[in-house]
Amino acid sequence: MEHQRPLILISNDDGVVAKGISELINMLRPLGEIVVVAPDAPRSGSAGAITVTQPVHYQLLRKEVGVAVYKCSGTPVDCVKLALHAILDRTPDLVIGGINHGDNSGMNVHYSGTMGVAIEGCLKGIPSIGFSLCSHEPNANFEPGSPYIREIVQKVLDKGLPPLTCLNVNIPVTTELQGIKVCKQSKGKWTNEWENFAHRNDDHYYWLVGEFADELPLDPQSDHWALANGYVAITPVTVDVTAYPLMNDMQTWF
Amino acid sequence: MEHQRPLILISNDDGVVAKGISELINMLRPLGEIVVVAPDAPRSGSAGAITVTQPVHYQLLRKEVGVAVYKCSGTPVDCVKLALHAILDRTPDLVIGGINHGDNSGMNVHYSGTMGVAIEGCLKGIPSIGFSLCSHEPNANFEPGSPYIREIVQKVLDKGLPPLTCLNVNIPVTTELQGIKVCKQSKGKWTNEWENFAHRNDDHYYWLVGEFADELPLDPQSDHWALANGYVAITPVTVDVTAYPLMNDMQTWF
Repeated sequence: MEHQRPLILISNDDGVVAKGISELINMLRPLGEIVVVAPDAPRSGSAGAITVTQPVHYQLLRKEVGVAVYKCSGTPVDCVKLALHAILDRTPDLVIGGINHGDNSGMNVHYSGTMGVAIEGCLKGIPSIGFSLCSHEPNANFEPGSPYIREIVQKVLDKGLPPLTCLNVNIPVTTELQGIKVCKQSKGKWTNEWENFAHRNDDHYYWLVGEFADELPLDPQSDHWALANGYVAITPVTVDVTAYPLMNDMQTWF
Repeated sequence: MEHQRPLILISNDDGVVAKGISELINMLRPLGEIVVVAPDAPRSGSAGAITVTQPVHYQLLRKEVGVAVYKCSGTPVDCVKLALHAILDRTPDLVIGGINHGDNSGMNVHYSGTMGVAIEGCLKGIPSIGFSLCSHEPNANFEPGSPYIREIVQKVLDKGLPPLTCLNVNIPVTTELQGIKVCKQSKGKWTNEWENFAHRNDDHYYWLVGEFADELPLDPQSDHWALANGYVAITPVTVDVTAYPLMNDMQTWF
């Protein structure tokens, strides 16, 4: 039996033409066969959204040795689901979201389409990772993270991940990365989230903006501490969101 | 100082005109002052999605004693964020999503806009609950769950919930409910998720469908066991999704 190279499925939420996904493809080509199924337009903040009110369409954009790229009209999660069902001819060894243009650490995991990709892969039992760079610049420099991304992907290909878990990897913007920290998800809250740009004197129009307010001092085990100190932050994520302590406490409620 | 009735913020993902949210308003009117800020159209499967590529608009639909209803152009999470920022004049005592037309138990928590509402409330530090009936019928009968919903809401108003936790409540379709079980999230996977309705002979169009395959036998502590046996299932949910055991294991990886 022929030895097959690892199959890596890549999607994102910035869309198939974003720089981050192109850079990721180039970084990972040496590690396996790449299939990209990514949204045909930006879908930032998609979280785990799925498309249920209309059909979803996909189309091959280009195919060369070791890389095939498809665009899809659906959400990031749709892309993963459709790739697994209709596009790939075998189960991938890895599902990767990214590289996102923007920070998905801390509580942002709940809004992130990049992590939607990783969580969907994980729900399908496939080792999965979301990669994000802490910059929204369309032309951001992804290069400093490259050796770390390759190292993390190779480790997960070699070791796998336990059931019901995936990785949320965030990379700070610096050319002097300090290494990798395995972290817990930071707490803290978004504040001042809306900016009112009145439209024709109608003051009920708002743009989502906001600032993230950390709980200070930063917990040295948290992903925000790692990022603030120049480390690549790996936050292991579980898809079993049961609050077990509360589950036990509530047994006496009813 | 005047004693204020509890303020309850309600949203959903089926849209402001859905039967489920109307029924919920009627059920909860005796328990507090109600403000509804809900999507202007169905947004099922929205998960924690937020709107970042366009502004969001809201509009008052009706106001009577104890109830104000607004529609909003955004996602369920946008509705909660905008209500807290621009519409409510005080922090609500409770944020509630639902009643959803459809099951949000088990792994569906990751796709659910109803739970998107509850998770957003929770991220803002407010006790929050998502209610779902296990029926997609637009004219489903929500009445059998009514006393349980009121009991759960009153308990949470009285006792609160610990930080970083909220409740995912699912109600089976039966007129003979057996009571309440506090559960853990069922494992299992969606399968056969796409149906291909070729459009003009283009076979790249797919509708999201699917069947949920449970791990059998059902764990008697799981929400799917509770629902299959006629119980209202309360699954406590945490927004700290750190996989702590994996976090510890991975400290030696790098």
